[in-house]
Amino acid sequence: MSATAAADIQLDASGRLRHFLTVEGLSRELLVRIMDTAESFAGVTAQNVKKVPLLRGKTVVNLFFENSTRTRTTFELAAKRLSADVLNINIATSATSKGESLLDTVRNLEAMHVDMFVVRHAQSGAAHFIARHVAPHISVLNAGDGRHAHPTQAMLDVFTIRRCKGEFAGLKVAIVGDILHSRVARSEIWALNTLGVEEVRVVAPKTLLPAHVEALGVVPYHDLSEGLRDVDVVIMLRLQLERMGSAFIPSEHEYFQRFGLTEKRLEKARPDVIVMHPGPINRGIEIDSAIADGPRSVILPQVTNGIAVRMAVMSMAMHAGPDMEVAA
Amino acid sequence: MSATAAADIQLDASGRLRHFLTVEGLSRELLVRIMDTAESFAGVTAQNVKKVPLLRGKTVVNLFFENSTRTRTTFELAAKRLSADVLNINIATSATSKGESLLDTVRNLEAMHVDMFVVRHAQSGAAHFIARHVAPHISVLNAGDGRHAHPTQAMLDVFTIRRCKGEFAGLKVAIVGDILHSRVARSEIWALNTLGVEEVRVVAPKTLLPAHVEALGVVPYHDLSEGLRDVDVVIMLRLQLERMGSAFIPSEHEYFQRFGLTEKRLEKARPDVIVMHPGPINRGIEIDSAIADGPRSVILPQVTNGIAVRMAVMSMAMHAGPDMEVAA
Amino acid sequence: MSATAAADIQLDASGRLRHFLTVEGLSRELLVRIMDTAESFAGVTAQNVKKVPLLRGKTVVNLFFENSTRTRTTFELAAKRLSADVLNINIATSATSKGESLLDTVRNLEAMHVDMFVVRHAQSGAAHFIARHVAPHISVLNAGDGRHAHPTQAMLDVFTIRRCKGEFAGLKVAIVGDILHSRVARSEIWALNTLGVEEVRVVAPKTLLPAHVEALGVVPYHDLSEGLRDVDVVIMLRLQLERMGSAFIPSEHEYFQRFGLTEKRLEKARPDVIVMHPGPINRGIEIDSAIADGPRSVILPQVTNGIAVRMAVMSMAMHAGPDMEVAA
Repeated sequence: MSATAAADIQLDASGRLRHFLTVEGLSRELLVRIMDTAESFAGVTAQNVKKVPLLRGKTVVNLFFENSTRTRTTFELAAKRLSADVLNINIATSATSKGESLLDTVRNLEAMHVDMFVVRHAQSGAAHFIARHVAPHISVLNAGDGRHAHPTQAMLDVFTIRRCKGEFAGLKVAIVGDILHSRVARSEIWALNTLGVEEVRVVAPKTLLPAHVEALGVVPYHDLSEGLRDVDVVIMLRLQLERMGSAFIPSEHEYFQRFGLTEKRLEKARPDVIVMHPGPINRGIEIDSAIADGPRSVILPQVTNGIAVRMAVMSMAMHAGPDMEVAA
Repeated sequence: MSATAAADIQLDASGRLRHFLTVEGLSRELLVRIMDTAESFAGVTAQNVKKVPLLRGKTVVNLFFENSTRTRTTFELAAKRLSADVLNINIATSATSKGESLLDTVRNLEAMHVDMFVVRHAQSGAAHFIARHVAPHISVLNAGDGRHAHPTQAMLDVFTIRRCKGEFAGLKVAIVGDILHSRVARSEIWALNTLGVEEVRVVAPKTLLPAHVEALGVVPYHDLSEGLRDVDVVIMLRLQLERMGSAFIPSEHEYFQRFGLTEKRLEKARPDVIVMHPGPINRGIEIDSAIADGPRSVILPQVTNGIAVRMAVMSMAMHAGPDMEVAA
Repeated sequence: MSATAAADIQLDASGRLRHFLTVEGLSRELLVRIMDTAESFAGVTAQNVKKVPLLRGKTVVNLFFENSTRTRTTFELAAKRLSADVLNINIATSATSKGESLLDTVRNLEAMHVDMFVVRHAQSGAAHFIARHVAPHISVLNAGDGRHAHPTQAMLDVFTIRRCKGEFAGLKVAIVGDILHSRVARSEIWALNTLGVEEVRVVAPKTLLPAHVEALGVVPYHDLSEGLRDVDVVIMLRLQLERMGSAFIPSEHEYFQRFGLTEKRLEKARPDVIVMHPGPINRGIEIDSAIADGPRSVILPQVTNGIAVRMAVMSMAMHAGPDMEVAA
């Protein structure tokens, strides 16, 4: 499906967010609005962890076709902080491999008057498929597909950059790692360019870069030290060895030798560079512990911001963002 | 245990519902009262999915000795919409196969001041056993036993009929499928006759009908087209191949040929016939997809009504139905 | 780690409870305060099972590295009765065997602004390790380690004794069973002596008693009938066959012959003796069913009191005990 088609599914007739399936195709205005909404939740959460009643009486279903405690946790927390009821449903992929039974599952939950599906599925497009078939009042959030991409990850990354740097204009951002297999990288490239950064670089061995990668609006580098020169932001991707054919990549050791993020390599970047990683970290493979736990790392703030972004998307999809608080 | 004995366990001294173990033996007045209560919740749910505070401060335990995500979900949702706290406990049947440890498990939870057990157990009678032993303030709801019968299923079926047809008088209802192994069929026969339908038919191969089935107050048919003639309601049972000895039934294909519900066969019924099925559907085995997804199907409304019925039974068992709202 | 060091971790600068990892090292004043707080919750719970809002807006994470439905249930219930949001996280021990990834897991949850970890881990010291590393506003509760000891068990035992006997002065208490492998026994010995009982006895075969056990402040007995003479309280330990080397213990049958609690043996105790057991009971191995279900058994009240004690510790750790209700 093209990004435009996906965007069409995501927005209602008045251009408001209904589903959240991908950031590709979303306008700068909408990306900013999500970040502004997240900012308001980040403030609330940091102060005294109070719950807000924006989704009181709503039922959020975590519909997980593959197990991911980490992801489920972040969405469950976000929903509970919005006062929603949360239903966790884990379904072995094997039992629902046919599109037909997936639809029957969705139809049944729909008939129980649930309000939102947070979908995690090994197959790309499962969340889109569900979004195309649910009743008008139901929202679908993509919590990751076959390549562990989920749009809230891309969104929390740009939100973290804004919280650290204030503005996007003038920033140089390097995305380091397996660009070829990462849908989150594509989402980030879209979001960063749409938000107006000066330059997006992708840094990877040639075997982990798509052909004609420049067409995405990026500058490719094959040498990490070169790619890090003068950047303001480094976004590390997670090596997902289990999802890559062995022919594509060098050994873990060799990878770290060439593309592992170390103190020495990071010296090439600007002094106030921030380092991001979606977690969980493969220490000593893609990133040195000294960096991951060091002062330039914003890996843990990313987690915090992820809750705020998920609260933002959930409340906007339910048409109950802070700008509607008068009605709450 | 006889239906009367079970009914005795279910009602308190003043004749009010305390447990909900089976519909067999329940009076017409009580069946109507459950449906009336469900109707009030169905209305609330359809409007804006608000929670009602009738079970606030109560703890409902989903005590599942066999896994059933589908059933657990409906009870969990119903309890949460009543503002109860829900505790999900899954216990491998093997670890508690002795009646003694079942009782120890129950006694322990009881000591934690829980208020309601929703019991799912592979052995018939487990819910009854627990109901006979719990403290006076605790209610037990049967969420299914060895043959996947649960009384809320029979109750939501008659509730769905009432919502579609208004009255029971004058209705002809056909129950199609494995009557022999289905406790839900017996419950439905009781409920339908008690509520005053004109005729209940059972349609099945001889091998799937009990001996002397007429004694239950039904007219048996062995030919589906004949059995459907002029009926207002078709209740399909789910084929549970795993629970039937292979000698009893024909092959799936042969079954569909003889007893699968198709458009052509349904033409024999009244034009405004409704088709029901407890789900999940075995498409192409007991029912044609064109029927299941067609205009006469009320399969998804059944799911919706199931939440309302479970809310009704839960609130009545806690003596907190809508007619007691003044005290809430 | 020494008891003093653990106590240091548990208390904040003003001497208030921050974590709850062990009762060893806690002062009499603090033990009494926990029991007083539990008493107030026990009263509330017994009346009408209402929830109290002391932890509203707080997030409690049940971080279980080994499965224990029973323990998880008690903490989940306690947290929900305090109006907290509860997140259940089960992590296979294998996936987090390295201290480093345990810390990464904790850091991530911390970044999600959770407020309390209830930790269950097969390795002794896991809860202590986490407590030493969490952010200042987070509390850690030990829900059991390698030997199934958890301090809330020791605490609910002494709380149960106080509820039954009123005072500790003048009481003779016998702890019966595998003292050698039980950390809960050591906790109970500390608590009972600190609270001023007249005598603590330990009753076990020599192979299940530590060397120099008298140094703990107890009188050892190797004969059950002798050990029970004139006692006011019997605390049975659970035989954990799976955790003991086969060389250490006699057969189950032989054990019951020598150390099983029977009516006849209990006649040696005071007439108003109470019998305690942490559950689940091995009927006929360490205790006779006639005792377990008889009038002197307080096994089920222990369960009830366990909820109150967990509510007490949770609310005190969050600095929100009943004495702070004005601020709630």
